[in-house]
This record gives sequence, C-alpha cells and structure tokens, in this order.
Amino acid sequence: MRNVITLTTDFGTADGYVGAMHGAILGINPEARIVDISHGIAPQDVHQAAYVLYTAYPYFPDGTVHVVVVDPGVGTERRAIGLRAGRAFFVAPDNGVLSFIAASESVREIVELTNPLYWLPKVSATFHGRDVFSPVGAHLTRGVPLLNMGRRLSEIITFPLPGPSLKADGSIQGQVLHVDRFGNIITDIRTEILGGMENAQVEIAGYSIRGISVTYAAADVGELVALIGSEGHLEVAIREGNAGAALGTVAGDEVVVRP
Amino acid sequence: MRNVITLTTDFGTADGYVGAMHGAILGINPEARIVDISHGIAPQDVHQAAYVLYTAYPYFPDGTVHVVVVDPGVGTERRAIGLRAGRAFFVAPDNGVLSFIAASESVREIVELTNPLYWLPKVSATFHGRDVFSPVGAHLTRGVPLLNMGRRLSEIITFPLPGPSLKADGSIQGQVLHVDRFGNIITDIRTEILGGMENAQVEIAGYSIRGISVTYAAADVGELVALIGSEGHLEVAIREGNAGAALGTVAGDEVVVRP
Amino acid sequence: MRNVITLTTDFGTADGYVGAMHGAILGINPEARIVDISHGIAPQDVHQAAYVLYTAYPYFPDGTVHVVVVDPGVGTERRAIGLRAGRAFFVAPDNGVLSFIAASESVREIVELTNPLYWLPKVSATFHGRDVFSPVGAHLTRGVPLLNMGRRLSEIITFPLPGPSLKADGSIQGQVLHVDRFGNIITDIRTEILGGMENAQVEIAGYSIRGISVTYAAADVGELVALIGSEGHLEVAIREGNAGAALGTVAGDEVVVRP
Repeated sequence: MRNVITLTTDFGTADGYVGAMHGAILGINPEARIVDISHGIAPQDVHQAAYVLYTAYPYFPDGTVHVVVVDPGVGTERRAIGLRAGRAFFVAPDNGVLSFIAASESVREIVELTNPLYWLPKVSATFHGRDVFSPVGAHLTRGVPLLNMGRRLSEIITFPLPGPSLKADGSIQGQVLHVDRFGNIITDIRTEILGGMENAQVEIAGYSIRGISVTYAAADVGELVALIGSEGHLEVAIREGNAGAALGTVAGDEVVVRP
Repeated sequence: MRNVITLTTDFGTADGYVGAMHGAILGINPEARIVDISHGIAPQDVHQAAYVLYTAYPYFPDGTVHVVVVDPGVGTERRAIGLRAGRAFFVAPDNGVLSFIAASESVREIVELTNPLYWLPKVSATFHGRDVFSPVGAHLTRGVPLLNMGRRLSEIITFPLPGPSLKADGSIQGQVLHVDRFGNIITDIRTEILGGMENAQVEIAGYSIRGISVTYAAADVGELVALIGSEGHLEVAIREGNAGAALGTVAGDEVVVRP
Repeated sequence: MRNVITLTTDFGTADGYVGAMHGAILGINPEARIVDISHGIAPQDVHQAAYVLYTAYPYFPDGTVHVVVVDPGVGTERRAIGLRAGRAFFVAPDNGVLSFIAASESVREIVELTNPLYWLPKVSATFHGRDVFSPVGAHLTRGVPLLNMGRRLSEIITFPLPGPSLKADGSIQGQVLHVDRFGNIITDIRTEILGGMENAQVEIAGYSIRGISVTYAAADVGELVALIGSEGHLEVAIREGNAGAALGTVAGDEVVVRP
C-alpha cells in the first residue's frame, strides 16, 4: 500500500498554507499519511530544498510520494512535473529542485503535469502547492498511474551538482552544501574519496583542522572538529557549539582537504 | 467518516503544549487524524488566528473539526463555544476568533461548552486548549452530537470584519489583513470588486504600483508587484523579496486602489 | 493497540533530520501514529528536553512510545536506553533526559539498546536518532518486547531534579524550570506546598508580586501576576506580555515565596 506523502516547502508554519495543503490531500485521500519534511526552507531557495529532500527521502518506504514546493516561478511558463524514480515518486516545479534525485536514482518516468482532472477544481495563479502539486501527490497515493497525469517528458531541468575536484598536489577542493540547525557545515566531499586521509588537514574560512574524526566528541567542547556526517559527507562542526555562526560559513563556501 | 481535526494556536512548537493536545485527542479518539494548521500565531493575536484559519479551513474534507486556541481570556468568564457551520465544526474560545467563519458560512448550531463529560477529568485554569477544547474536538470526531456538549446559544462574539470602502472619486480604500512569511502583503480588497481595474494604481506606505498583475513574475526580481493572491485578495509583493519588511507594513495599514 | 510514538528533539524543523526519523519509523511500522512533541529544544539542552517531555507525556494513551533525542554524546560510549515506566515506553540516550520520568513513574524495565536487529541496517556515528532510537521506538509500537532489544540494566543516569527548599522563616526558595513561548516563568514550586499561601509574596529578579492568583486575567494587561500553571507549578507571568523577556529570567534563576 502506497499512502505516505511528504511535503518540503518554503512556506513556513505560521501561515495557513501548509494546513491548506494537508486539507487538499485529505480531501482526495483520507487515508494518506502526510509527513512534513520541512517547511523551513529559506524563501525561494531551490538549492536548499533540493539538499534537504536528498537527506530525508531515502529513509521512506517504497512508493512514498514526495511533494516539493519551492516555486519562485509559480504562474509562469515553468513546468510542473512528476517523476517516478527509484522506489518513490516526486512532484515538484521543474526548476532544478529534483537535481539530486535525478542524479542519484534511476528515473523511470517523467511527466509534465498537464491534466487538470487531478488538480483542485479552481487553480490559483500563485499557489500551485495547494492547487496542483498536493492534489497530484494525493492521487498518486491512491494508485493513479503517473502517466495519466499529463504528457511524458524526456528530461527535467537540473542544476550542476556541486562536487569536489582533485588537485595536482593531491588536495581535494570542495564546497559547502548546507549549514544545519546546529551550525554543522556539511560539504560536498564524500567519504568514498577520503580513504586513508584520516590525518588530512581540512581548511575552511581561514581555519585549519588536523584529522578527520568519527564523532563530535573527538574534540573538546567548543573546539572545531572535522568528521564524516550521517549522510557520508565531510562535515565541520564545533563540539556543542555552532561552527556555521563562528566561521561565518554559508552554502557555496570553499573547503580544502590536504593529505 | 469524520475523523480529521485541525489545530490553530499561538503555542509555538518548542514547548510541550501542542504535544499535550495531540495526546489528549488520541486518548479520546485513537483514529483521529490531527493536522497542525499553525502554532505560530503571534501570542494572543486573535485577529491573526482568525485570518489564518480562514485561509486554510475551506480545503478540508466535510465534517472536519477545527480547534482554535488563542485565548488571552482563559480562566475568566469568557465562554468556550462549539459551532457547526457550513461543512465543518469549530471549537474555540468565544473571543472573535471565529469572526470570518460566522461571516462566511451558514451557522447551523452554536453551543456553549458547559458539559464537563467531554473534557479531561481535571481542568486547569490556564490551559483549556488541552483540557477542554481538544477533548471536545476529539469527541466531535467520534460523532458525538455538538448539542450534547452544552447549552445552545443564539450568537457568538465577532469583531467587525475589515472590508474596503468605495470613495466618491472611484477609488477603493482598504487595509492590510496579513503579512505572510514571504512578506506578501495581503489586503481586504477582494478580486470581485476589482473588475476592469487591471490598470489601476495601488498605493501603500508611500509607494505606488501601476497595474494589477496575475503572477509575481510580472515584475522584475526585487520589484514591487500588485496581484490577486491565492485567496482572491489584492496582494502587494516584491518578486523574490520581502515586501512587508521593505515597506514596514503590518496588519491594519491602509491601501488605496485608484482606477 | 499500541501505535502512538512521539518525538522530542533538538533537531529543529528546517533540516531533513526529523523527516528522516519519520521515514525510518514508517518503514518499520506503516501504522505508527507519529506525534512531534517538540523539535525546538535548544541544541544539546538535555534539561529543557527533560522538562518538555515531562509536561506532555502524561496526556498520551497507554502504551505510547516516547523517543527523545537530545544527544551531545552521540557516537561516544554513552549508552542508548529503553524504559518501560508507568503506562508508557521511553527511548533515549542515557544522559539524564529521562530524569523526570524516573522520578515520577514506576520504572518496570530498563534495557541498554545493544541489539542491532532493531536498528537501521547501517548506523552512522552521528545520527542515532534516525538509525537507532526511531527504529527501536517503531519496533516497540509493533509490540516487540523491550527486553528483546538489549541487556537489562538496573539503573539509568539522572540529574538532580530541581526542588524547592523550606527556610526557617517559613519562606520557600525555588528555581525557574522553564520559560515558555509566552514568556511565562515556570518554577519548581508545586501547588501542593503552597496551601494557604494565596496571599504570599513571590520574589523574582528583584520584583515582588503580592498574592497567588488563579488566572492570568487576575492582573491588569501588562502587569506581573503569580499563579498556578497548568502543570501545577507556581508560575510568574505578565498578562498578555512576556515576563521572561521583561525580567531577563532563564532556567535556573532563583524564586522565593514569603508567607
């Protein structure tokens, strides 16, 4: 049974927008199990939404429907799309927010959502999260085939995924993907390319950290530590502190690992 | 089957208050489907809660029970009420928080919640959200008739709803209802009275915007735009920016539309 | 049927961490009813998490599983534990976060979570909330006996619970447990020891309040009021204002009640 549907948006939780999406979904599938992955994406930050979805979606059951609405182009000619990829479905504006999914999963079907039969009867120009994406997601949880929902596409828009480069001197140059609530600085350097570099030097924002540890507790309280985070990415943290704030680091900043 | 129950409060989500309400509901109806519309209402802001509920409730299935707890008068003589209105039920303190509902829906029953049979066994003086409103809502989802829960009333307290006025020179004078997370400034001027005014001039906070557009994207990034929002209200926004912050606008501020 | 599972963490709701926990739980028990008590615990604040859990857990149905993840020692030798206590189950790191539970409930079983059969197949060093605690909680909701999940312990780590002291002059000296979203200052002085002290003087942060009231509305708007809060604790508030901010009070500050 396929009845789990997740929401990832930049709507915040103070307004009524998320509630309206829940209502629209339950109106179509009273048995839907709705999970709010995040509504705290920075407004219009498609890259952040793409990353947050990427960290959460692998843990959901087969057939889960992931609805992502960070949609600065709502009401324009940007397409609305549905994807069947790997074990799951994804519904989103076609603005790159599914870039990590397209790169990580075997994409089986791509559909432009053109069939108004699966939308709310009245579609506004500014809130397709409620009027198009949530209803489509709810119908998917009921087992409606994705291909019924519009016309098949051969590709979606993706942005270039961050990825580290290997330099001639053996160093690895990467960038910051995300700074989380704890101020943990998560980079695009994955554990697979760090084999044998436990004693490497990690450089970021003028700071230098010797060694890649296993846990935050490898450092003293208040000290910087480099480690492999829970998604397999190199991460820079301050034990029981906030590295992002202390270093002034934001997504896109450079990080270098020297052997 | 009537098992969806929504919560709209000013409790925030850091404390244990919302959790206690969920627990109280599930203790009465283990099958209840609880939706958190918002717990981010500004403390004691009855008007904001009334507006947020109004934007979300129409999208829920028939028979949904909406519990609203913004309750500065908790523990005083203010009444606790239940409403059957339109396709739904509403449970709240009688402080005006259901003003939009009373104005928009056909009110079928009003009950003062006086029957302790449907409350928690022990009722505190300061947290009726947990002890009275949530339990009453949970019993409603089980099909208990509203009229069992207290004594019938003929009216509820409402505050005067904002609404625009038409001036002799043909201009429309309205006010700001709400500024949302994106900084979108939502006014009380509805699309129905803006027919033929696509080229009107919208004035707010000393700024003037020419024309009422269909989407945010009608403006350049960073520019002001006036448009009809997803609830059918005239809205002032900055494309991919925050108009509320830029203009210093808050609920109650004046807006004028000149033909 | 035992299928309610609650989450209390310091993960915030902007990242994908909470979503990943929901996914892990639904992957193990598709029928689980997940309630988010709070993800707004201050980072690493074990005491705050302990208090928030304590205010919410009593309202949940029999057999509810409470998962608490505020875990500064993740990846170290700190133990992961499961408790059967009172009518419920608790799953958490063994760092004192269950101190209130251990003091309030009859503890029936304590288990160190050592059996990887009930974890995700791959366990990271930094996110046991997703990889250990949530899966264990999900298996508990399916009825797996707690004793299957590891080895029996005889005790857990607790921190000294705050509690007031009675002075020779008849005054009561207590401390602040928590300041909530409204700025209400909640103390460790319980109603049971305040019998006959309705006219006592409450002193905090250099302010003095005469009398212990029943409701916030006993004071004028903007004035300080002392009252018994919804958990039975002495509380200091400002009617329709924020006492915590006005007085600069934080958890641990002293409060004195003079008869």
